[in-house]
Amino acid sequence: MLRFRQAEPEDWPAIWSILEPVARAGETYCWDTTMDEAAGRLEWFPGPAGTDPSLRVVVAVDEADGRVVGTAQLHANRGGNGAHVANASFLVAADAGGRGVGRALAGHVLEEARAAGYTAMQFNAVVQTNERALALWSSLGFTIVGTVPGAFRHPGVGPTGLHIMHRVL
Amino acid sequence: MLRFRQAEPEDWPAIWSILEPVARAGETYCWDTTMDEAAGRLEWFPGPAGTDPSLRVVVAVDEADGRVVGTAQLHANRGGNGAHVANASFLVAADAGGRGVGRALAGHVLEEARAAGYTAMQFNAVVQTNERALALWSSLGFTIVGTVPGAFRHPGVGPTGLHIMHRVL
Repeated sequence: MLRFRQAEPEDWPAIWSILEPVARAGETYCWDTTMDEAAGRLEWFPGPAGTDPSLRVVVAVDEADGRVVGTAQLHANRGGNGAHVANASFLVAADAGGRGVGRALAGHVLEEARAAGYTAMQFNAVVQTNERALALWSSLGFTIVGTVPGAFRHPGVGPTGLHIMHRVL
Repeated sequence: MLRFRQAEPEDWPAIWSILEPVARAGETYCWDTTMDEAAGRLEWFPGPAGTDPSLRVVVAVDEADGRVVGTAQLHANRGGNGAHVANASFLVAADAGGRGVGRALAGHVLEEARAAGYTAMQFNAVVQTNERALALWSSLGFTIVGTVPGAFRHPGVGPTGLHIMHRVL
């Protein structure tokens, strides 16, 4: 069973252990593949200043052993008159794959976004080759609004597209 | 005649005088319409720390009187394996409209983006009702990749879409 809660500073080492291999692989996020831990923290975690005030970070905890097996970011995709649309990002521990953590975490975050008053959710850069993510988002009601051709240089596949995906909440 | 150069800290008051009415109107950018000058500066200008290192800010100067009549931002739209696609934003002084400042500034920024090694340019949020911008970008070779429905709450028109636009450089 999974439990979801707001991330605390003490969760950072566990989050970094999930985030670092994703960053190094460079296959699913537009992050510097050589990022150090401080840069990773700025990417994912609320910083001391200048952080988007809408940012919430959630962790998924395996109730069996208390381990953090996934994490998500939720924030406004834009400001001002665009701030009613949420954006979210998700990470699941490599050794927790295939157990439905991503799907459960996504369901929780969609619910949290709805409760926070967002009326839709948008993903800005879903890598076209990321079939697992695409299948998950499609099954959760997201549709592809458009695809920016060649916008991602996949380290294995080469130039590929980035999908913009969207669903009403 | 216009001259284009990198923005300097001394240009900030002129840039704010262009940016503030655009922010207050809330019709074309996803900015807090009540933003103060400090927030405006963080939005447009390189800050002391934490600023995207790819950010360049350009001003268009009217050579007749030395006045700043427009400004543009150029930076990587994403990081890591998406950093070859540029993003840019443009502002033209209200009393300098209709003189081709936006078109000339855009031409300069497209050239600068190409010279900096970007292979494409993407706009993430062109307000669907902003016919002037749409006509300009279309005439400069941008196409609409997709439109996020209802993603912008136009203060006059109500909910409208945000276009993602793109062109190869």
